[in-house]
Amino acid sequence: MKRITPKFNELIHSDLELVYSRMRETYALADPTIKAILNRFVSPSGKQIRPAIILLTGRMLDGPDDRIISFATAVEMLHTATLVHDDLIDSAQFRRGNPTINSQWSPDVAVLIGDFIFARAAHLAVDTGSLDVMELFTRTLTIISHGEIAQLLGNQHGDMHESYYQRIYAKTASLFETSSFCSAILSPCSKTCQAAMKRYGYQIGMAFQIIDDVLDFVGNPAEIGKPVGSDLRNRIITLPFILYMEDHRDDPLLQLILNHETIDEEDLNKLIKAIQVSDAIKRSIQKANEFSQAGIEQLASMPNTVERSALIEIAHYIVDLRI
Amino acid sequence: MKRITPKFNELIHSDLELVYSRMRETYALADPTIKAILNRFVSPSGKQIRPAIILLTGRMLDGPDDRIISFATAVEMLHTATLVHDDLIDSAQFRRGNPTINSQWSPDVAVLIGDFIFARAAHLAVDTGSLDVMELFTRTLTIISHGEIAQLLGNQHGDMHESYYQRIYAKTASLFETSSFCSAILSPCSKTCQAAMKRYGYQIGMAFQIIDDVLDFVGNPAEIGKPVGSDLRNRIITLPFILYMEDHRDDPLLQLILNHETIDEEDLNKLIKAIQVSDAIKRSIQKANEFSQAGIEQLASMPNTVERSALIEIAHYIVDLRI
Repeated sequence: MKRITPKFNELIHSDLELVYSRMRETYALADPTIKAILNRFVSPSGKQIRPAIILLTGRMLDGPDDRIISFATAVEMLHTATLVHDDLIDSAQFRRGNPTINSQWSPDVAVLIGDFIFARAAHLAVDTGSLDVMELFTRTLTIISHGEIAQLLGNQHGDMHESYYQRIYAKTASLFETSSFCSAILSPCSKTCQAAMKRYGYQIGMAFQIIDDVLDFVGNPAEIGKPVGSDLRNRIITLPFILYMEDHRDDPLLQLILNHETIDEEDLNKLIKAIQVSDAIKRSIQKANEFSQAGIEQLASMPNTVERSALIEIAHYIVDLRI
Repeated sequence: MKRITPKFNELIHSDLELVYSRMRETYALADPTIKAILNRFVSPSGKQIRPAIILLTGRMLDGPDDRIISFATAVEMLHTATLVHDDLIDSAQFRRGNPTINSQWSPDVAVLIGDFIFARAAHLAVDTGSLDVMELFTRTLTIISHGEIAQLLGNQHGDMHESYYQRIYAKTASLFETSSFCSAILSPCSKTCQAAMKRYGYQIGMAFQIIDDVLDFVGNPAEIGKPVGSDLRNRIITLPFILYMEDHRDDPLLQLILNHETIDEEDLNKLIKAIQVSDAIKRSIQKANEFSQAGIEQLASMPNTVERSALIEIAHYIVDLRI
């Protein structure tokens, strides 16, 4: 994936170090064998967008450093725990180039390591000293896990667009929303300011997931770590598919996907190719841009600081596909 | 298993009803398919010792009804979530006569349903309005999951007795301790009183698990839901084994178990039989009785109420094997 841009990185570099050292402390009391498994998560990998949003919001609003760091660590660990269980369920062999816990140890170890990281994350969230934050943190965990079960069971209700947006809210935007919202709650800031930061997180979370779903069709498999069209292969309906479908209602292949029927590899590849070259991709990116722009608008009333500029930069970065 | 004795049952009957209706409310917003899976947990089954301890402690100490009920529900759900993941890891087919989630749906569904119940439990714990309770609740979840991983990885350090007591603390006594301790924290009660109730929970939790481990050797397999000696079959070292070993250091079969070596079925049954008829069983029960008695002693300074009598009754009930 793309690297975090230098400017952005400079601003939060030392804070991110603190997040990862807090994570290390959190794991320090574990049995040595368990600590060895856990320590693989204690290095800045991936995009660190969630802690970045928390740290930048906290700094922009003069939030209390220590509690903001605790919260950023809690959210990064919650995200990590969900990835451990996701990889288990997807039987994924690798994540960011490293063997997954389910592949290197066993599915059972992955279940329990995920649970342990959830537990440590929740324990760290208590360090924020805020019951409001705890309430939102545990509510978000509920929304994420409920969304995961619904996706696994293939539950799909009502309008496809609405159902899609609900799913990506549960999967991604809920934690982005909680990230920026709680960082504002912990800071000296009005209810109006808190609400604006909540919406910022929501909007860029939605943008982030739409782009992720677009990359599933048009990204470099080596970079995103999964084969092209893997959502479709797993019968997960995303925005590019929905928009393509609206223009190709007569395509019999689409019905096979929607009805969870068998579809041969050749037909599947044909469909993926057709979506790739259709304007469904461009329109999906456009939708992500709209969310991103709406997120940026929430920042208009925020203090005019370098951190606000960095939060705007994140909103652009998220939708910057470079394809 | 034995039923809860009538007196005990009478006192907390209506409160337990509230716990289960709170649980139902907690699941009410889930997608219908998911709710159907969850609702199987919303009926008083098992022994309900944990919520009973919380409810009785709260009543004895004039605690706030609503927050005590929330906490009892949170603990019962936390316990439920650990059972869902335990059954998955043990590939258990049945629990209390019902098919397990991993067997009736799939291991993946069991992972996520467990996560969802954890999340709901933590969310309910926030309703206690106490950061101290949240801290203890999340710390306990950490201890339990750490203990589970250590057991799965077969980590065993130092003195066998010490290692055993650490394991049963993590597995069982930690949640008993948090149950009675937090109920006291939520109630108008001195630090001394809180500390005594913490020790009460710890002591009877230790007693409870030792008896559980004894029943693994001498219980009725139909009642306990697993074959005789299943701990030994899974190379889990418990007190009866340790005490037997101390008197039979020359038995070569013991070394096979300790070294995780293959042992044939006939030899295994011979060893189980030998432990069953040895005085290791009686001495283990004696140890459980000592813990139970130490728990009862903590109640000496508590208000002389029917609830205190019921808490004493629970301490006796836990070690009453009727064998």
